[in-house]
This record gives sequence, structure tokens and C-alpha cells, in this order.
Amino acid sequence: MKTYNVGILGASGAVGREMLKILAERNFPIGELRLLASAKSVGKKLTYMGKEYAIQEAKDDAFEGLDIVLGAAANPVAIRFKDSIVKAGALFIDNSSAFRMDEDTPLVVPEINPEDIFKHHGVISNPNCSTIITLMAVKGINKLSKIKAMYASTYQATSGAGINGPIEMLDQMEDLVFQYKETNEAPITIKENNAKTFAYQIAGNVIPAIGSSAFEDYTKEEMKMQNEGRKIMHLPELLVNCTCVRVPVVRSHSISITVITEDKLTPEQVKAAIAKEEGCVLCDDLDKNVYPMPILTSNQDLVYVGRIRNDLVNDHGIALFCCGDQVRKGAASNAVDIAVRYIQGK
Amino acid sequence: MKTYNVGILGASGAVGREMLKILAERNFPIGELRLLASAKSVGKKLTYMGKEYAIQEAKDDAFEGLDIVLGAAANPVAIRFKDSIVKAGALFIDNSSAFRMDEDTPLVVPEINPEDIFKHHGVISNPNCSTIITLMAVKGINKLSKIKAMYASTYQATSGAGINGPIEMLDQMEDLVFQYKETNEAPITIKENNAKTFAYQIAGNVIPAIGSSAFEDYTKEEMKMQNEGRKIMHLPELLVNCTCVRVPVVRSHSISITVITEDKLTPEQVKAAIAKEEGCVLCDDLDKNVYPMPILTSNQDLVYVGRIRNDLVNDHGIALFCCGDQVRKGAASNAVDIAVRYIQGK
Repeated sequence: MKTYNVGILGASGAVGREMLKILAERNFPIGELRLLASAKSVGKKLTYMGKEYAIQEAKDDAFEGLDIVLGAAANPVAIRFKDSIVKAGALFIDNSSAFRMDEDTPLVVPEINPEDIFKHHGVISNPNCSTIITLMAVKGINKLSKIKAMYASTYQATSGAGINGPIEMLDQMEDLVFQYKETNEAPITIKENNAKTFAYQIAGNVIPAIGSSAFEDYTKEEMKMQNEGRKIMHLPELLVNCTCVRVPVVRSHSISITVITEDKLTPEQVKAAIAKEEGCVLCDDLDKNVYPMPILTSNQDLVYVGRIRNDLVNDHGIALFCCGDQVRKGAASNAVDIAVRYIQGK
Repeated sequence: MKTYNVGILGASGAVGREMLKILAERNFPIGELRLLASAKSVGKKLTYMGKEYAIQEAKDDAFEGLDIVLGAAANPVAIRFKDSIVKAGALFIDNSSAFRMDEDTPLVVPEINPEDIFKHHGVISNPNCSTIITLMAVKGINKLSKIKAMYASTYQATSGAGINGPIEMLDQMEDLVFQYKETNEAPITIKENNAKTFAYQIAGNVIPAIGSSAFEDYTKEEMKMQNEGRKIMHLPELLVNCTCVRVPVVRSHSISITVITEDKLTPEQVKAAIAKEEGCVLCDDLDKNVYPMPILTSNQDLVYVGRIRNDLVNDHGIALFCCGDQVRKGAASNAVDIAVRYIQGK
């Protein structure tokens, strides 16, 4: 069996660690495994299939001999090492947003546009987490009738901000619980503000801004839904009005979406279509309290879709609610599955 | 100074207690204060302006001599005692949803349709909490150009489900923190499922359904935004697509809204209008991390509005995010302020 030498750039972060887990789950045919990170993580050890691997420093000559590099680092790191990776002859499947909108870089959700994988010039970008989950939920609708526009409001988990997100939230939860026990009153604000990962306290709060300002007071994160959505779905005229909100959840992003299509669809048609879609679970029975929730979708790869009903504003609209694990399907699993399709198609 | 004999029906609940607090804050000219609740609360004492009042049993003859009864009880209780209250000659300002859509019952937000107060036939209904907060946020827009439609996704606090909501959440937070300390892993689900107030665990989760099924798989809570919105705003053709979601917040509901108006408006026009609106705070500077959040709006009456920007889907749309204390402005303060305007206008 042919094997591939695989590197993970940014192996010590939340997404890097998850990639390692998913490579094992997929039983990926690995020859050499090379874990790369910044100098401060060098020497730390991570386990893969029962064996320990020491993290090595990411340097220009660290990619020689690799076939695939999975990028789990921030934009500056991805930009810094891209040329070295490509020069070493490896395919760079990068989770940062640095190259996503580059014309010669495919942006891929394997269940949506796998054909784009083979148009790469050394780099394939992995889309934004909430974009992946949203598009997974609506891809079946786009097969019934072309999607013209979407209204989206997100409910994004703290782990979307990295490993420290949930820890900061849990520390703040402890503070709230402590105050409650002291006073017997449900507290609104934490006593000692330790917010670092987030701009404000996230436990017991919601923060309606993710990312810096990008376009007409939309944030970068909000614009990704339209810009990346257009590229992945091959819908250059897609319009998206998106509001991104951080909520005190450990893991799994949720999105409340209304999809406007060219033709009028019924909720029944949409439910039947989503039930058949690869990577989706139809989770929709309001009377029986069946709907997608983070506690159902965390630590697995499927995107749950429910609350499917007519848009009461536009008769060509369908409202729905979806939920998926943004560290897995929204990042690590999507990247590894690009690699899986890549080696299958070679 | 003329005084009024005031009763609170359902005085022991979350909204009843808050009404008592707000009557004091408003320095309401009370003659007799009568706290009424079901038999099981009889004898419990609540404090009003430093004096203790014992809760009495709500019975048909318990309303004699009262001028105003503030209703903070559930629908069956409101229905049970309505005739007795009206027969006793008191004005019944009721927070339940029992009479809201009755043709001869005004449904009032004092800052929006105060004139309707004086069209009552013994009962004035207080609107739904997330409806009040949403309409407070958009009322300034409706003055610039008639609102035709709204897309709304809510982020509703646990105290919207009554006094036990936040307690259940805090208990579950303690469970999550405990697991984290034991395992050093951020936990997804609570160990011992104690969900009673909510259908599922709410700490670390979001639940995308509030209320039972009402119309085409929309919940009652979701349909209130359209039906009550039409009545309060005197916009009989208003269309609303609403998704109601419970989030792990103690207090203050947030709503992500897109408003579609008859004429095209600019974000600048909308910001200027909202800044002048009674009961609203413009809270909008993305680059400086200024936007509405539950930690800012709890335990006060103003509705904060921010993230105001063009709708990228419909050029007659404006997107925004708003936040308000649903126990106060969404319920108790709104009801007391109806009473204040009522006695001022008499």
C-alpha cells in the first residue's frame, strides 16, 4: 500500500491536535509523520496511534520529503512557510484564511466541490468553520433550486477561538457559580474580569462580533460566509447577510439560516433532500423536541439540520437551524478529508 | 396626591417580584398594596419600600377595592380571574399571553402606542418579552419608513423561563466546571442530567425552540413577533420570520434582526434615528468593540441597539443587533409604565 509523508504545521493548537486524531480515525496511510510548530512548542510530545512524536520547529527546510502538509496555524505562519512547502513538493492543505480567496487556490468542502481539489497549484484552502457548517446544511437545497441569497445569524462556540476559549469560559463559569452560592442571586457579571481570548466576559453573555471590521461594518468572519460561499458553491452572485455571535458553548457552532432560492420549494421537499445528503443528519421534529443542538453534534463529523419551515417573509425562502462541530467538520476533518480524496484521486 | 390601590397577581414569581421593585423605583402613588398568589404562596412575605407584605390567596373576591391589578401569572390564572378583576372595577394590566390578540384588548408598549391604553375595556395586555425588545429597537426605523418585514433570530436568557431557569443553568455550570477540574478537558455534556425547566441541558448549549408548535412548524414564541408586532405597531401586513433560541445567559434577551422597509434607508439615517428614540441607547462602534450585550443591559430598562449596517441581500434592508432586560423592559417595567401612563392620562 502506498503511503504518504504527512506534516502538520501548527500541531500543538486545537485544530492541529484534532487533525492528528482524525488522521488516525481515517487510518490515513502515513509513511512519516512530522509535527511542526513554533520554537516554543519544540520538544513537546503528542501521541499518534499509541506512539509519541516530538514537535519539531517549523523552518524553511522542515518540509523536505513531505507529500502533504496540513496547515493548522494562523495566517502569518501559513504565509511565511507556503513557498517552502510548495518548493518541497508537498501539497499544502491550509486551514488559515490567507489563501482562500486567491484565484489559483481551490477552496474545498469535499462533499460539495471535490472536483476543485485537482485544480490546485500546490495549495488547497480549507474554508472558514461556520461557512463549512452552513454550506453543508444548505447544499441539498442548492441541488433542488439555485440559492440566490441567505440570511444567517450564528451561535459560535468558544473553542472557535482556540484552546484557551473554553478554558476562559469555564473559569468565568466557576466565578458565577461561586457568586451565586455566596449571595443566592444569579449573577450577571464575573467578579474578576479575566477576559483575554474574548473582548468581554463570555460566560453568561453573548458577544455579537467575531473578527475585525471588514466591509461596511460587517466583520471578516461575517463576510466569509458570502465570499467563501460564492467560491465553494460556484455561485458568483450569492448574497449573504450574516451576523456572527459568540455564545458560551464549549464546542459546535449553530447557525439560524434563511435560504432564498430561484424556485419556490416546500419544507417537505427540503427535508427529503437534506435527509439524503452526504454528511448531513435531518433532525427535525418540533413536537418531539427534536432539533440540532451543540450537545448532540460535538466530537463527530455530521452536520445536523432541523427547524425546516417556510420563510414567512419571502415565499421563495426556507428557514432552518443547523449545528456542527467546528473543530472537526468546520476545520480538521474537512482538511483531512480533502487529503483523503486527494490521495484517492491520484 | 391621588393614590391608587394596586394588586399584583402572581406576586411570588420572577416578574411579580420585579414589578414590586419597579413600582418602588417609579415611586408609584400606591394607597393599598395587595400581593396575590396561589394558595401555596400564602403567608410568604415580600418587602416593598422597607415594609413587609404577606402574600394573600388569589380568589374571586380578592380584588375588591383595587384600582389596578398587575398580572404576572400564567395564562390559566389570568383567564380564571379576569372577570372578577374587571367586575371589581380594577384595570387589569396583564403580562400573560391570554388576551393579547383579543380585539377589544389593547396591547401596549408605552413608548410605541400609548394612545391605545385609553381604548381598554378593563384589560390591557403586556406584550411578549422578545417582541417588546425587538419593537423598541426598530420603532425609530418605522418612523423613517414603514417596516414591511423582519428576519429575527433570538438569543434568549434563561430567566425568560422563570425563577428556576438561571438556577438550573448555574447548577449545570457547576457540573461542567467540576468535570473540567477532574479531567482537564472541557466537557460537552453534564454528568447528571437535571433538566426540568428546559427540555435539555442549557449550560454550554443552545436550544433552538421556545414554546410549542403554533403555525407551520413555527413556535408560539416565534409567531408572537409577527402577530403582536402587527397589533402594537399598527402594521397589519407586517411579515416576520423569527427563530427563537434559548442561550445560557442569566438575563437579557438579544435579537439579531434585519428590517425591510418601504424606502431605502442608510445606516447613518438609522443610527441618528435610534439615538433620539425614547428608551433606546445607540451602542454601535465595531472598531472599538462597542455593541449591545446582556452584561450591559441587565437590571435596567433601556434597549441597546448596535451593529447597524446595510442588508447585503435586500437594498431596502437594515441589519442590527439589540439587547434588553426581558424581566424588566420585556415584562415588569413595561407593565408598570403602562400603569404610570394610565394614571397620568386619567
